[in-house]
Amino acid sequence: MIAKTRLFVTTDLAGGLSIGLEPSQAHYVKTVLRLGPGAEVALFNGRDGEWRGRVDGVGKGWCSVALYEQSRRQEPPGDLALVFAPLKRGRIDFLVEKATELGVAALHPVFTRRSVVERVNLDRLRANAIEAAEQCERLDVPAVAEPEPLERLMARWPAHRRLLLCDESGAAPPIAETLAAASGGAAAVLVGPEGGFAETELDALRKLPFVSPVGLGPRVLRADTAALAALSVLQALAGDWRRPRRR
Amino acid sequence: MIAKTRLFVTTDLAGGLSIGLEPSQAHYVKTVLRLGPGAEVALFNGRDGEWRGRVDGVGKGWCSVALYEQSRRQEPPGDLALVFAPLKRGRIDFLVEKATELGVAALHPVFTRRSVVERVNLDRLRANAIEAAEQCERLDVPAVAEPEPLERLMARWPAHRRLLLCDESGAAPPIAETLAAASGGAAAVLVGPEGGFAETELDALRKLPFVSPVGLGPRVLRADTAALAALSVLQALAGDWRRPRRR
Repeated sequence: MIAKTRLFVTTDLAGGLSIGLEPSQAHYVKTVLRLGPGAEVALFNGRDGEWRGRVDGVGKGWCSVALYEQSRRQEPPGDLALVFAPLKRGRIDFLVEKATELGVAALHPVFTRRSVVERVNLDRLRANAIEAAEQCERLDVPAVAEPEPLERLMARWPAHRRLLLCDESGAAPPIAETLAAASGGAAAVLVGPEGGFAETELDALRKLPFVSPVGLGPRVLRADTAALAALSVLQALAGDWRRPRRR
Repeated sequence: MIAKTRLFVTTDLAGGLSIGLEPSQAHYVKTVLRLGPGAEVALFNGRDGEWRGRVDGVGKGWCSVALYEQSRRQEPPGDLALVFAPLKRGRIDFLVEKATELGVAALHPVFTRRSVVERVNLDRLRANAIEAAEQCERLDVPAVAEPEPLERLMARWPAHRRLLLCDESGAAPPIAETLAAASGGAAAVLVGPEGGFAETELDALRKLPFVSPVGLGPRVLRADTAALAALSVLQALAGDWRRPRRR
């Protein structure tokens, strides 16, 4: 349930400050939400926690919010990454929204042998990530990296960072088995494009010491489904879903 | 990876039969896929397994497929259900697609106290389920039930059928904990509308002996995200993801 208006800003936040919103946010507050002076708004910037404030002035293209109380302290950032081949517009928007809700800290679009979608609108993906972070009560927004070839990202991947490869070949052990056997620590999920990885790509990935291929059941999943399913299981078994929700 | 054309039909399937496709499927085969006589097609009907066939005639609004070999035997149907409050158009389409890929056997739209979406286009939901079943290589299509009030469905719910209630109150134990403690058997997932369940509804649900409230981490999830995440974790820990994929 989304009970309050939460907005992501880039400026520093502290008690007593009056924060000027971006024109698009001001428009949203004034015209979409129809909030006026005195209305409650919460702001966060990924660094200073979440602050309660009240609209203290609003006009065409501008809105300022006077902060009066920190409602949540900043938490240490998560360490979950999603590496994915870009998808078509509706699906990639959806993937970014869901990955943000599921607690992904970094999104890495990568190009693979069978990638069909070659252009990535980073501004749109970042806007989706911000909107989802506002809605799901995160205190930070996932970073969306510049797209790059998969090989290049793998070449500089830290050896200690486990990468779960969503492997639809049928040869990988079930994801719950792999996660039960694995030790904790930073983790990431890798999904290929709709057409899947090329056989040579899969072979090369499986040889990387940090890659753990995982199976996601007997059906053929779309790339976005595989990503969300693997992230959910990872969070439930080895991530921050093991503690209950902050109230 | 979707390597072959799979089509769901309602007619019986057996070797030697020539099957006439529905006009919309014929159009799809002829105009979208541009298949002609001799092209390979696989058919399934939820009862007779999957059959290989070849297009043996195609014209405006019609197409017939001659079956020559059963490629997969019918498997016993799954027993996973999803009970959900209807969502807005894009999100409900997506939810049905994903639930089908994740192996849901029955979809139950229900009206709750805070339901905003009151009309459900069952024909569209069923078409989505069929398309997703064709793509994900299922041998059956999930049933989409008529929408009804949540209380009515709960009143006739079988006592042995565990229902995981996606509970965002923060009071529920983590989903992995609940699933680890539970015995196997039929299971289902229940998610509320975007606005969440009303407090009185939650109280009533928690009192039902077959309901197990589960927590899905520290963030506020949208209804569709919660449903897909809970289904994924359920399949991974207690469902058919525990065996590897058929190749």
